[in-house]
Amino acid sequence: MYQPRPEHKFTFGLWTVGNIGRDPFGEAVRERLEPDYVVYRLAELGAYGVNLHDEDLIPRGTPPAEREAILRRFKKALQDTGLKVPMVTANLFSDPAFKDGALTSPDPWVRAYALKKSLETLDLGAELGAQIYVVWPGREGAEVDATGKAPRVWAWFREALDFMAEYAEEQGYNYRFALEPKPNEPRGDIYLPTVGSMLALIGTLKHPHRFGLNPEFAHETMAGLNFVHAVAQALEMGKLFHIDLNDQRMSRFDQDLRFGSENLKAAFFLVDLLEASGYDGPRHFDAHALRTEDEAGVWAFARGCMRTYLILKEKAQAFRADPEVKALLEAYYQADPEPLALLGAYSREKAQRLKQLELPEACRSRGYALEQLDQLAVEHLLGVRG
Amino acid sequence: MYQPRPEHKFTFGLWTVGNIGRDPFGEAVRERLEPDYVVYRLAELGAYGVNLHDEDLIPRGTPPAEREAILRRFKKALQDTGLKVPMVTANLFSDPAFKDGALTSPDPWVRAYALKKSLETLDLGAELGAQIYVVWPGREGAEVDATGKAPRVWAWFREALDFMAEYAEEQGYNYRFALEPKPNEPRGDIYLPTVGSMLALIGTLKHPHRFGLNPEFAHETMAGLNFVHAVAQALEMGKLFHIDLNDQRMSRFDQDLRFGSENLKAAFFLVDLLEASGYDGPRHFDAHALRTEDEAGVWAFARGCMRTYLILKEKAQAFRADPEVKALLEAYYQADPEPLALLGAYSREKAQRLKQLELPEACRSRGYALEQLDQLAVEHLLGVRG
Amino acid sequence: MYQPRPEHKFTFGLWTVGNIGRDPFGEAVRERLEPDYVVYRLAELGAYGVNLHDEDLIPRGTPPAEREAILRRFKKALQDTGLKVPMVTANLFSDPAFKDGALTSPDPWVRAYALKKSLETLDLGAELGAQIYVVWPGREGAEVDATGKAPRVWAWFREALDFMAEYAEEQGYNYRFALEPKPNEPRGDIYLPTVGSMLALIGTLKHPHRFGLNPEFAHETMAGLNFVHAVAQALEMGKLFHIDLNDQRMSRFDQDLRFGSENLKAAFFLVDLLEASGYDGPRHFDAHALRTEDEAGVWAFARGCMRTYLILKEKAQAFRADPEVKALLEAYYQADPEPLALLGAYSREKAQRLKQLELPEACRSRGYALEQLDQLAVEHLLGVRG
Amino acid sequence: MYQPRPEHKFTFGLWTVGNIGRDPFGEAVRERLEPDYVVYRLAELGAYGVNLHDEDLIPRGTPPAEREAILRRFKKALQDTGLKVPMVTANLFSDPAFKDGALTSPDPWVRAYALKKSLETLDLGAELGAQIYVVWPGREGAEVDATGKAPRVWAWFREALDFMAEYAEEQGYNYRFALEPKPNEPRGDIYLPTVGSMLALIGTLKHPHRFGLNPEFAHETMAGLNFVHAVAQALEMGKLFHIDLNDQRMSRFDQDLRFGSENLKAAFFLVDLLEASGYDGPRHFDAHALRTEDEAGVWAFARGCMRTYLILKEKAQAFRADPEVKALLEAYYQADPEPLALLGAYSREKAQRLKQLELPEACRSRGYALEQLDQLAVEHLLGVRG
Repeated sequence: MYQPRPEHKFTFGLWTVGNIGRDPFGEAVRERLEPDYVVYRLAELGAYGVNLHDEDLIPRGTPPAEREAILRRFKKALQDTGLKVPMVTANLFSDPAFKDGALTSPDPWVRAYALKKSLETLDLGAELGAQIYVVWPGREGAEVDATGKAPRVWAWFREALDFMAEYAEEQGYNYRFALEPKPNEPRGDIYLPTVGSMLALIGTLKHPHRFGLNPEFAHETMAGLNFVHAVAQALEMGKLFHIDLNDQRMSRFDQDLRFGSENLKAAFFLVDLLEASGYDGPRHFDAHALRTEDEAGVWAFARGCMRTYLILKEKAQAFRADPEVKALLEAYYQADPEPLALLGAYSREKAQRLKQLELPEACRSRGYALEQLDQLAVEHLLGVRG
Repeated sequence: MYQPRPEHKFTFGLWTVGNIGRDPFGEAVRERLEPDYVVYRLAELGAYGVNLHDEDLIPRGTPPAEREAILRRFKKALQDTGLKVPMVTANLFSDPAFKDGALTSPDPWVRAYALKKSLETLDLGAELGAQIYVVWPGREGAEVDATGKAPRVWAWFREALDFMAEYAEEQGYNYRFALEPKPNEPRGDIYLPTVGSMLALIGTLKHPHRFGLNPEFAHETMAGLNFVHAVAQALEMGKLFHIDLNDQRMSRFDQDLRFGSENLKAAFFLVDLLEASGYDGPRHFDAHALRTEDEAGVWAFARGCMRTYLILKEKAQAFRADPEVKALLEAYYQADPEPLALLGAYSREKAQRLKQLELPEACRSRGYALEQLDQLAVEHLLGVRG
Repeated sequence: MYQPRPEHKFTFGLWTVGNIGRDPFGEAVRERLEPDYVVYRLAELGAYGVNLHDEDLIPRGTPPAEREAILRRFKKALQDTGLKVPMVTANLFSDPAFKDGALTSPDPWVRAYALKKSLETLDLGAELGAQIYVVWPGREGAEVDATGKAPRVWAWFREALDFMAEYAEEQGYNYRFALEPKPNEPRGDIYLPTVGSMLALIGTLKHPHRFGLNPEFAHETMAGLNFVHAVAQALEMGKLFHIDLNDQRMSRFDQDLRFGSENLKAAFFLVDLLEASGYDGPRHFDAHALRTEDEAGVWAFARGCMRTYLILKEKAQAFRADPEVKALLEAYYQADPEPLALLGAYSREKAQRLKQLELPEACRSRGYALEQLDQLAVEHLLGVRG
Repeated sequence: MYQPRPEHKFTFGLWTVGNIGRDPFGEAVRERLEPDYVVYRLAELGAYGVNLHDEDLIPRGTPPAEREAILRRFKKALQDTGLKVPMVTANLFSDPAFKDGALTSPDPWVRAYALKKSLETLDLGAELGAQIYVVWPGREGAEVDATGKAPRVWAWFREALDFMAEYAEEQGYNYRFALEPKPNEPRGDIYLPTVGSMLALIGTLKHPHRFGLNPEFAHETMAGLNFVHAVAQALEMGKLFHIDLNDQRMSRFDQDLRFGSENLKAAFFLVDLLEASGYDGPRHFDAHALRTEDEAGVWAFARGCMRTYLILKEKAQAFRADPEVKALLEAYYQADPEPLALLGAYSREKAQRLKQLELPEACRSRGYALEQLDQLAVEHLLGVRG
C-alpha cells in the first residue's frame, strides 16, 4: 500500500537526493552521489523521473570527453530503468559571476553568459528528452535598492525569456517554460517573489502560451502565503506547468523539508486540489534530507515524500466522498436562483434590479458550519473517521 | 519648509484621521469626527483631497433625508476648501453579512448585495467627482480550505469587476479601478494577497485597461515582501493607479503606522522611485494615529506623514544628484558593447555567437561597491552628507 | 471514544466560547452568551471548568445589586454542574485608560487603577474557588521607543506582581500566579514577549515560587518560535502553572484558532510532552470559533478542541509504545560509558582527560535516522500505522 | 568627524571582515584574509579589537608547529597595532560531528568533544588576553521533535556551562561568559531562541554571576522581536556582557547586514539605550559585507558600521537634549503624588486605599503625544531638526 509507481509521476532532482548537507554554518556531511547511481536508486523506489541543473550532471569546466562519458553513463541508467528526465534547468546561481544577478546582472557580460548557459541547458535537456524548462531567478534580486535597479530588471528578464523561447522554437525543441518564484534567499529580496508576480510577468512576454509556473510549496510559505491559493490561481489561468513539493516553516530560511513533514494540513489540501484539478505533470520533490542524515537517511527521506503524498491522496478522496462533508458543502454553496439571476454578465436591467435588492436579514446571522467542516477534515487527516 | 500644499497631492481617508482607536482588545479611545470637520482640518494642513468608503460618509441605514443633509454639508466643506475626493470605495467588510466573503461569498444573496453596494458607491463617488474606485477584497479569503473554494473565487471576483466596469462605462463615469491586495487580516488568508496576484488577475478581465493597482506599503510588508519592487513591477506594467502610504513591521498584524515611522529606508527608496516614475496620482496616507493619541495626536500624525514624505523627496533628489553616487552608478551599470550586441531580441546569429562566449574572469572577482553606495544612501538619509 | 470528561481537565474561558466575533474590520456576528448559560453548555460537553476575566462575568460599571445577582446565578450554575473556576484574571486591556499600558502606564493613576482592579479580581477569584491567577500584560508594550520607557517598565511590573502576591498571601488566598507572554498585538511590541523573558523576570521577583508561566501556543507561534521547546524549558524550571491551547499561523495577527486546526504536528508533540511531563493542571483552550460561525459553530469548535486533544493523546501514547520508534531512539541516544565518564560535574582530572580526547571519525559520518523517525511520527499522526 | 577611535571600543570578528561570501546557493566570492593582515587593516580603520573563533585563527587540524607560527604572527600584529582580542569563542558548528548538536548532541562522544574544544578555546583566549567568552549554541536545536529531546537538553547545556566556568576559575582565567541566543538557522529551531530564554537559563546555573548575555540585533529581529526591549531587560538584570551589532530584515534567513543599513530607527534607539546605560564593553559588529563585494567593499562595510554608530550616537544625544523632547517626556511621565503613594511595596493600608480609588475620567481621554514625540525622533534621525 502507498507504494509509489511511475504512473504517479514522482520526480526528484539530482540536487535533492544528492544534496551533500552543506549549510551557511557547516561543512558537507555526505558524499556526492554519482548521477547514474541516483537514477538506479530512484527507479528502485518507484520514481518516475529525475530532474537536473546543467551542473548537477556536468560540473562546470568538465572537459568535452569527460562530458560525453558522463552523459553516456547517465543515459544508460535512464534506459536501464525507464526513468525520464522531464525537466531541466540552468544553474544561474552558484558561479560567483552571478553574485549580483544573472539574467539581470548590471554587467552585460554576465547577462550574456547567463543566456549562453541557458541555451546550452536547453540543448542538454532536449538531448535527454526533457519537455519542461524551469527558470528560477534566484540571484535576480537585491539587498541594496540604491542602485535604482528595480525599474530596469523586468525588461532584461523579459528579453532573456523571449530569447530562450524563440531559440527553443527554432531548434524544434518542445519545451514549456516553468518560472519559479521565491521571495528571498539567497538575495535579500528576489524581484519575482510570488506566484502572482510571475503570472503577471508572463502576460507581458512575447509568447505567453509557452510560459507557465513552477510554484514551490516552501517558497510561498516563506512569505507566509497560502500555497493552495497560489496554485489555485495558477491553475485557473492554465499556468500550472510543474510543481515543487516540499515543506517549510513560515518566515524563516529556506528549509526544503520532506513533503508533509511540517504543514500536514496544507499538504492535504494541496493534494486535494492537485488531484481534482486534472494536472497531470510531474510531482517533483524539491527537498532534501536533513543534515543529520547519512545516505540511508536520504532514501528514507525520498520514500517518505512519496508515501505521504499517496496517503494524503487517499485521504483527500475519502474526505470528498464523505456524505457528511458533502451535505455540509451543499448547504455551504447556496444556489438561490433569485440572487443568482442578478449576477454574471452585466446588463442594465440587472443593475437596476440590484439597486432595489434587500439583503435578507438571515444572511447576517447565518453560520457557515466551517468549524464542523474543518474538524471533519482534521479527523480524516488523523485517520479516526470512517 | 516641508510645508504640504495641494499640488503635492496628499490625501487622507475619512477613516484614517477619523479612526476611533478600537482594536481587537480595546474599546474606542476617540470620538468620531464629522466628515465636514475633517475636510476643513485637512485643508488647513495642506492636503489635496479626502477619500472615503460609502459608510464613512453615509453610515449604513441612514434615512434618505439625513443622507442629503450629510452630503450637502460635506460638499459645502469641499467647496469652501477646494479639497477633492479623488477616490471612493465600498465598505465590503464591516457588515456581518460579509463574514465569509462579499463578492466571493458562498451565498449569492451576499454576492448580489456586495455588488449592489459597489454600484451605489460608484454613484456616490461620481457625485463627488471621484475618478478612482478602489476595490479592497479584504473579506475575500478563508481560514478553512476544506470548502474547496479556492478554485472558484476567481470567476466570481472577475464577474463582479467586469460588471462594475461596464456599469461605470454605461453611466458615463470616468473611473479607473484600483485593486488593493493584502495577504491576510481580517481573513486568515486573502485570495489576492500580493501586488503580483492582482496584476495577474487584471490580465484575465474583460476590460483590463480600466484596472490597475492600489498597492499598500503595509500590506506587502506584512508578507515580508519588498514594497519598492512591487511598485516597480506595477509601474512597469502601467498599472500604478493609486498608492496607499503608511508603515508596518514585517510579519505581524496590520499596523497602519505613520508614513516613515518604521522603515525609513524603504520609505526613502519608495519616494525615490515614485517621484522619478512620472506617477502623478494621489499620495494617499492609509494610516491612522496610534491608539495612545487624542485628537491633537491625530493631526500631529497627519502632519508627520506629509512632512516626512517631503523630507524624503528632497533627500532622494540630493542622493541622485550626488556626484559620488553618479560615479558609482556609472561603474555599476557597465555598457560594454561587445556583450550588449549579443543581447536583446533573438536572432540565430546571436545564439551562435553566445555559444562561443567566454566569460571574462574579472566578472567573477569584480566588486559592485554596493556597501559604499548604500552607506552613501544612509548618510543622505541621516542628513550628514553635503 | 474521545469523549471529554472532567478528569481530562479541559477548560474554556467565558471570553472564548462567548466571543462575539468582532474583528478590526468587522462588527460583532454573534450575541453575547450569559455566563451561567455557558456553564451549563460546557458541562454538557464534558469540560472541567470555566475561566474568566473580571469583566467577562461582571461588566465594568455593574451596580452592586446586579453584581450579586449575576454571581448568584453563576455560582448556582457551577453548583448544578460541578464545573470549576480554576483560573481568573483581570482585564487590563479593554478600558481606554490602559491605552498606553496598565501596570506600566506612564500615568501613576492608571498604574494604581490597574493594581486595584487586580486586587478586586483576586477577591472575586477567591470567592469562586480559583487557584490560578493569570497576568497577561497585553497593554504593557510600545509602538514608540522614543519615550525611553524600556529600561523602566521592569521595576513597575515587578512591584505590581510583588504587591499582588503579598496581598494574596495576607488574605489567605491560595493562588499561584501564571504569567502569560505575547510578542505583539495589541501593542506593536509587548515588553515580555516570550516564555523565556517571563521565566527570566520571575527570577527577579520577591516571591518567585508563587510565580510561573501560562504559555500560549499561539503567542510563541506568532513569533515563529517552537512552542514545544518553550514549554519544555518552563517545565524543566518547574514553572508550568497553566497552559493556553489554541492554534495559529506563524508571523501574523493573533488568530486563536481551534486547537489542532493548523499545526497538527506541533500539537501532537505538545500533547506528547504535556502528558509525559506529569503536568496535571488545566488544559485551557484560549481560542474562539471563527467569525463565520453562529452559536452551533461555537459548540462544534469547543467539541473539536477537546476531541482533537484526546485523539492526539492516544496517538502520542501509541507512538511512544511503537517498537520501531523505541529501537530508533535507543540507537539515537548513545550511552558509551567512555565519553560519559568525562562529562557531568567538573573535575580537574576530567578536564585533563578531555584535552586528550580524540573524536572517533564515525561521529562525523554517522546518520541519526531522523527522517525515518519523523516519518513514523507522521504516519502515527495520519493513522496509517499499526 | 565620526572618525572611529579605539576608545569607542569597536570590534570585528576575524570571521566577519574575513567572510568569503559563500551562501547556501553560491560559492565563495572572496579570498580568505590572513588574520594578521586583518589586524593591521582594522587598526588603520580605528577599531579597538578583533574577536575570533578558535578555527578562525587556527584551522582545524593545523599541526602544532604551524599553530605556533600563526600565533606568533598574530600576536606581533596585535602588539604592533595595540589591537585587543576582547572575546573568543569555540566554533561548535562547522564540523560535521556537530550536525545534531554539540553540547547537546545525543552522542556523548560529540558532547565530550565539544567540551574539549571549549576548554582549548578558553586556553587560547587566555593566551590572547580575552576576557569575554561567548557561547553560541547554534547547533543545539532540532528539526524533528520526535526524539523527545526538548526536556533533556537543558541539563546537558547547564552541565557544560558549569564545567567551563569551573575550569576557567581553576585556571585563574578571568572570563565572563556571554551566551548568545538565536531563534533558528542553521537548525530549524534552536533551543535557546531569545534573550529571555538565555536570561532564564542563567538563573539555573551554579555560578550565575559568571554568565551574562551576548544578544545580537539580527537574531532577535529574525523572530520579529524588539531588540531594544530585549537589551533593556538584559541590562536591568545586570546581564549585558557583550553585544553583537548588525542588521536584518524580520522573518527571514540570517543576513548579518551592515549596522544601521536596514532598521535605522531601531539602531538609533539601541545606541540611545546603550550609550545611556553605562555599558562599557565592546561594540562588536557581527556582520559581513554583501556577497556582491570585493575586498574594497569589505573595508567600506567595516567603515560604514562604525561611522553609522557614531552618527547615531551624536543624534541620540541631540534628541535627548532637545527642549521640546524634554517637555514632552516631562508631560508623559506624570508624577502625581496621590496615586504614587499607593504604589511601591505592599502594605495592607495601601491595599485598602487602592480598593477605594476612583480613576479620574481624564485618564481615559488623555492623549500621550507619542505621534509628535516620534516624529521629532524621525526628524532628528533625518537631520532636519536643529
